[in-house]
Amino acid sequence: MSGRMHDLHAIQIDPIITRALEEDWGFGDWTTDICVPAGKQSLATIIAKEPALVAGVDVAAAVFRKVDPTLSIKLVAKNGDRVDKGAVLLEISGCARSILKAERVALNLFARMCGIATMTRAFVDQLEGTKGQLLDTRKTTPGLRILEKSATVIGGARNHRFSLCDGVIVKENHIRASGGIKAAVSRLLESLPPTLKVEVEVTSLDEVQEALDAGAHVLMLDNMTVSEMTMAVRTVRGRALVEASGNVRLENVRRVAETGVDFISTSAIFHSSRWADLSLLFSLDPVVQ
Amino acid sequence: MSGRMHDLHAIQIDPIITRALEEDWGFGDWTTDICVPAGKQSLATIIAKEPALVAGVDVAAAVFRKVDPTLSIKLVAKNGDRVDKGAVLLEISGCARSILKAERVALNLFARMCGIATMTRAFVDQLEGTKGQLLDTRKTTPGLRILEKSATVIGGARNHRFSLCDGVIVKENHIRASGGIKAAVSRLLESLPPTLKVEVEVTSLDEVQEALDAGAHVLMLDNMTVSEMTMAVRTVRGRALVEASGNVRLENVRRVAETGVDFISTSAIFHSSRWADLSLLFSLDPVVQ
Amino acid sequence: MSGRMHDLHAIQIDPIITRALEEDWGFGDWTTDICVPAGKQSLATIIAKEPALVAGVDVAAAVFRKVDPTLSIKLVAKNGDRVDKGAVLLEISGCARSILKAERVALNLFARMCGIATMTRAFVDQLEGTKGQLLDTRKTTPGLRILEKSATVIGGARNHRFSLCDGVIVKENHIRASGGIKAAVSRLLESLPPTLKVEVEVTSLDEVQEALDAGAHVLMLDNMTVSEMTMAVRTVRGRALVEASGNVRLENVRRVAETGVDFISTSAIFHSSRWADLSLLFSLDPVVQ
Amino acid sequence: MSGRMHDLHAIQIDPIITRALEEDWGFGDWTTDICVPAGKQSLATIIAKEPALVAGVDVAAAVFRKVDPTLSIKLVAKNGDRVDKGAVLLEISGCARSILKAERVALNLFARMCGIATMTRAFVDQLEGTKGQLLDTRKTTPGLRILEKSATVIGGARNHRFSLCDGVIVKENHIRASGGIKAAVSRLLESLPPTLKVEVEVTSLDEVQEALDAGAHVLMLDNMTVSEMTMAVRTVRGRALVEASGNVRLENVRRVAETGVDFISTSAIFHSSRWADLSLLFSLDPVVQ
Amino acid sequence: MSGRMHDLHAIQIDPIITRALEEDWGFGDWTTDICVPAGKQSLATIIAKEPALVAGVDVAAAVFRKVDPTLSIKLVAKNGDRVDKGAVLLEISGCARSILKAERVALNLFARMCGIATMTRAFVDQLEGTKGQLLDTRKTTPGLRILEKSATVIGGARNHRFSLCDGVIVKENHIRASGGIKAAVSRLLESLPPTLKVEVEVTSLDEVQEALDAGAHVLMLDNMTVSEMTMAVRTVRGRALVEASGNVRLENVRRVAETGVDFISTSAIFHSSRWADLSLLFSLDPVVQ
Amino acid sequence: MSGRMHDLHAIQIDPIITRALEEDWGFGDWTTDICVPAGKQSLATIIAKEPALVAGVDVAAAVFRKVDPTLSIKLVAKNGDRVDKGAVLLEISGCARSILKAERVALNLFARMCGIATMTRAFVDQLEGTKGQLLDTRKTTPGLRILEKSATVIGGARNHRFSLCDGVIVKENHIRASGGIKAAVSRLLESLPPTLKVEVEVTSLDEVQEALDAGAHVLMLDNMTVSEMTMAVRTVRGRALVEASGNVRLENVRRVAETGVDFISTSAIFHSSRWADLSLLFSLDPVVQ
Repeated sequence: MSGRMHDLHAIQIDPIITRALEEDWGFGDWTTDICVPAGKQSLATIIAKEPALVAGVDVAAAVFRKVDPTLSIKLVAKNGDRVDKGAVLLEISGCARSILKAERVALNLFARMCGIATMTRAFVDQLEGTKGQLLDTRKTTPGLRILEKSATVIGGARNHRFSLCDGVIVKENHIRASGGIKAAVSRLLESLPPTLKVEVEVTSLDEVQEALDAGAHVLMLDNMTVSEMTMAVRTVRGRALVEASGNVRLENVRRVAETGVDFISTSAIFHSSRWADLSLLFSLDPVVQ
Repeated sequence: MSGRMHDLHAIQIDPIITRALEEDWGFGDWTTDICVPAGKQSLATIIAKEPALVAGVDVAAAVFRKVDPTLSIKLVAKNGDRVDKGAVLLEISGCARSILKAERVALNLFARMCGIATMTRAFVDQLEGTKGQLLDTRKTTPGLRILEKSATVIGGARNHRFSLCDGVIVKENHIRASGGIKAAVSRLLESLPPTLKVEVEVTSLDEVQEALDAGAHVLMLDNMTVSEMTMAVRTVRGRALVEASGNVRLENVRRVAETGVDFISTSAIFHSSRWADLSLLFSLDPVVQ
Repeated sequence: MSGRMHDLHAIQIDPIITRALEEDWGFGDWTTDICVPAGKQSLATIIAKEPALVAGVDVAAAVFRKVDPTLSIKLVAKNGDRVDKGAVLLEISGCARSILKAERVALNLFARMCGIATMTRAFVDQLEGTKGQLLDTRKTTPGLRILEKSATVIGGARNHRFSLCDGVIVKENHIRASGGIKAAVSRLLESLPPTLKVEVEVTSLDEVQEALDAGAHVLMLDNMTVSEMTMAVRTVRGRALVEASGNVRLENVRRVAETGVDFISTSAIFHSSRWADLSLLFSLDPVVQ
Repeated sequence: MSGRMHDLHAIQIDPIITRALEEDWGFGDWTTDICVPAGKQSLATIIAKEPALVAGVDVAAAVFRKVDPTLSIKLVAKNGDRVDKGAVLLEISGCARSILKAERVALNLFARMCGIATMTRAFVDQLEGTKGQLLDTRKTTPGLRILEKSATVIGGARNHRFSLCDGVIVKENHIRASGGIKAAVSRLLESLPPTLKVEVEVTSLDEVQEALDAGAHVLMLDNMTVSEMTMAVRTVRGRALVEASGNVRLENVRRVAETGVDFISTSAIFHSSRWADLSLLFSLDPVVQ
Repeated sequence: MSGRMHDLHAIQIDPIITRALEEDWGFGDWTTDICVPAGKQSLATIIAKEPALVAGVDVAAAVFRKVDPTLSIKLVAKNGDRVDKGAVLLEISGCARSILKAERVALNLFARMCGIATMTRAFVDQLEGTKGQLLDTRKTTPGLRILEKSATVIGGARNHRFSLCDGVIVKENHIRASGGIKAAVSRLLESLPPTLKVEVEVTSLDEVQEALDAGAHVLMLDNMTVSEMTMAVRTVRGRALVEASGNVRLENVRRVAETGVDFISTSAIFHSSRWADLSLLFSLDPVVQ
Repeated sequence: MSGRMHDLHAIQIDPIITRALEEDWGFGDWTTDICVPAGKQSLATIIAKEPALVAGVDVAAAVFRKVDPTLSIKLVAKNGDRVDKGAVLLEISGCARSILKAERVALNLFARMCGIATMTRAFVDQLEGTKGQLLDTRKTTPGLRILEKSATVIGGARNHRFSLCDGVIVKENHIRASGGIKAAVSRLLESLPPTLKVEVEVTSLDEVQEALDAGAHVLMLDNMTVSEMTMAVRTVRGRALVEASGNVRLENVRRVAETGVDFISTSAIFHSSRWADLSLLFSLDPVVQ
């Protein structure tokens, strides 16, 4: 994996899981509490119903553990595994009621993360052999950014900034409001924490030059054609990092990378990815218990 | 709109918006605070960059209002409107910094809701002239269920249960755990709040009959063929509501509806819908201010 | 027990217990921290000082566990037990300070739940041999609904809806606002999640007929006399469930049930029940430790 | 009013109201949203259906305001008013949906507060002409202490401590754990914030003397007979405040007061009070709007 | 220790620690997660880099435990210990990543508490042999009062009131607003919970007499000279407790105490104390693991 | 001001203020509610009792506004103003009770912020004419980082990273754990979001060279002597930013700056600053109202 992600810590994912369970349960699960005897034991497995890149198996496990700390949980697959249709990803055994109550929340989170990772991987596969690396964006589902950006890293991309405070991108509106690229970058270089770089969105070769002169560390080429990007890379000659952005699709991502840019960013992995098709199989009174 | 949805109340959406802003801002927006002078005014519009069914325009407006109650906000489109590429959906004018800081969260929520509503509408359009109505499911993004299920109603579907406490679906696992359909349904009829119906998942005509005999109010035909569904509808003869479920796609939804079922449920509107392509256009120092 | 209740899960009762302890402690317990040496061990028992139906013994235990996970706790009585004056319900041994600090919150919750269950049981006893079942209502103490509605089930009643989203009752105001029973019920049948029934409040035999014709699933007879109720039951002839409501007291509940209604609902179990008289007995330096 | 209570501030009651509404609404109010047109206006009044002492009219108003800040609200009665059956307490006009959605939470809080205040007043009326004042206790509904203790003050009582940090009561268990009254009181006098008094629970005249000698500021006479209390008051001769506690009922409270104690405390106003019978009357399309 | 403090309970300090970690981590610790291999073990010690009075060693331990419950933690020093430069206070061994992530929050809380306790002790040392005791105030860091007031007790002071509800101080503004000392004290004696004393701020001998006559339990001598204080103590003759307040410094505190006052209060221990200089030493791959 | 800070937004400071008020009030303010008549009006001013640099005047105003939105508030001084002893900073008029209840929280936050800003300014004044800029650190009071780091910017410093996610500092422990500077920096350059720089802590000229070779963007010279720092600056020759850290005091900060480093960081502004001495003057029944 290139873009090493953060450890997900309970302080960060517990509130997400708790809220999700409260949302899914309301006052409780009538069907399960009335139909399933309290003592029933069962064995359940989560399987992939289509090929996928696994992401979030630890999050799914955390959901089951939150619902019932006495469940036995085995992570059969690891995050980052490519699995085929039918592969077993997670095994849970113990109280049948607990498993049924955790099922939907665990699957919803897990399937979303696998879906993002799988699409990310498809992009990353296109980049093999080029120096271009895939970056994600802030077009994530509100409330789930930490999980969705973990999924992109598991899929082989690197994270772009997580929020407005851990990265600077000077966009067209900022440029106009501050009176030009040079003015904007100067102010940032004077005021920013020195551990942050300045990235500038540019739309022409003139702006590329202007941003370089101003001292920008990263240039975001916005919606340029492949030949413009090639020119931009030549102009830059390694004096800044170069990110291609805008209208990136599976079909053209390799061509973009071949222009020599350092990074290609895309939101498609968030806004256009389908959830992976995962399913929980359930058997009562298994031998294990 | 058939399936009238709940009014969204501040008590319900404020926590979602607040969390989303905290997530997107971290300690603050370096770029905007440094580059954009505090007093700058601007006019912004959110436009559709592709045809869409509008959903969540009020939620987007609430985000801007939360960030800055002094902004002027005009809802140009209404939820439920079909709009073409280029249509203006929302106009915001006032403090430039505020608009830039609210932009991403407002768009992320709005685009997700429009995306769901647009796909829902595509399904619903297929059903025209049949008695079948589209239902949604609980395969929603954790933390956003109330918004996503609003979007399906705006798209023309009806809501299925929101959580495990406001609806009963006896699935295969419940049936086995309680010793059969008859036993499960009896227990439910004895114990449930009398305002809840009992829905039973059935996989064969025998089970259809068994569920009817047990007193089920709604039958969910699980992954049946079109001809099985036709037979099931005939067997039921109006004594229960009938819901078709499983493997419903845009291509086959009409054929499913033509079997005479009352409802067709699908999660595709959640797990396979793309976000609508929305964009915020921004002009500084507009005449309006 | 007829009306099987939900399992109470930590996600649901932990916030209630935590808030109650914060409320009862403020910055801390001066008396105990200053007077009771840190190492003192003790044995405490919670006893009933009057006959009662036990409800909430698990909640009381959860309070002690929250305050100090090292306490040994034994549930001597179970929820649903009828106990006499003097009966031991719960035994706790361990750190004396912890027991004293948990005492008030544990007793306040436990006594309230037992009080509700005990009064509920008194009503339910009156119904023996009739087909009428007791229902509760939404007149519960704000913040404690899940506990109070557990207590009614433990007392032998069934739950009515928990909130405005898991049940529909069309009351007089709704009827007038929508232009009559027929209009109101039609709209609901068109728009509701199909897993919810429609209950209509009726005040005369004409309205009984109107509601039946409109397709209501449950009729709530509002403040009718016994003879009106008898007539209503005959009119309905099993085509809908019938609930008697209004002015139900211990003295008349059996007569109401004998009219043949399916349900009798009462809020008295919430607004007019006394707390059970429970007490914590405490002995220092017990042999057990 | 003798025991002046705290102003209730939004910071303190907002979380109670918000939680109560979330509890009562779940995902929303199907009945109202479907049956009542969005634009309908109405006028509602909350009336007393039995004589009562008003408490919480401001809290009820705050519930309506929270649900809909555009409602017009008029507090017809004030906290502390004695009202007859039929009296109007609160008038609300505006959006019909908002009024219906706020109704249950507003009434549940208001009726509980009036019920406590009314019973408190009955006790206080018994004390007229004696120097004894009624005190409340910590046997309050978890989560609502601030409201319930406001109600007792409105009813004419004084508050005892709100929590374990704003008052000290040395009970039997503390006495035994610290090696006697003298030891316990000495430790407290050495360590407490100097703004807190020390109250000691005593069960005999010997203990009265012991507590006085130790320097206790308040003596709680625990379950003493009237003649024991009379002796205790004589022994004390004004050197400490004296509180009678235990087994206080409406029938005997005056006799207790006539022993000359300063305070009589009772939990009955919390654990044995009924809610006042309040009701919301509702008329659509009033002239006012 | 004179002023015995409250046990700090998880319910009280957990939210402080959780918020502090969320604040310090944001989305996560890039440096540690990328540079330190997941399996690395280490041994860390927190040492004092200057002489100090230890306070908060349990809080620091709780931070490490919160971050990683599998860490081994040994409290080498106890709260209240006087330690020299170089002393080891806490040992932690286990996962290197966890230790590095907890370090800053643990040290920030621990150093602040030690700093307060150390300065408090310096004041208390000055008082040796006098009857005067040091009191703290409410000039504490917002959000950390419970920790900071624990530190003063560990340092040998007694706590003054924690908040506006657990103590009464009638200041000049209250006196004027209520029409004089006599009026203010009377109202308080009529209305307060009987477990609270009344403290009055006085600025002259006349006011001392007035407050005594009114029945005040504690007098706060506000910014008096040493000779005024001596006179005040003589006037009071033990009929009330006397607290000296205002302009108390290490250099003059003993002289103030020698006037015979019972208490000397100072905020300097909060607003003018430096953090103790603590440091975490870290060694990888220790023998212990 | 060099280091432009973030706008403080209500979403960020409201929770801090609300928690602080809850902490300071507990169940309420007995003294004020009993002594001060509800209708009393007053005028209050917050003044500086010593020369100070103003910071947090907006935060103090927000506290008063939170307590009572009807108060009139005038910010007489602005953040960044240098004021003399006696200067008026804030004027508040309106309900006397509200002002008294807000006083302590407003002053505690305001005095802490002014204290930090004032000490920061003293450091910054020393740097005049050098190119060195002052940086802050993460040694902030847990829970108040956003306020304390605002204060440093107001005092003329620049912010260093706010948390572990918005800046990278490779410290000695990270270096050892990853096998050296080169290895650590490489991994970071491969994996970090491209908008973050890599800062490396170095302790010798060899390490300076090693870090430069590895591609570090910022070097933190750790506890070097002035002559070592001079050498380090010469070695770097502008190829990286250079930060001096460790043992920086008012007395030596200028000499450090004269070595030519870009930044000098210090925690002293947090751990060793006193609160500014601010006071609230209060007059009843002012003409203004």
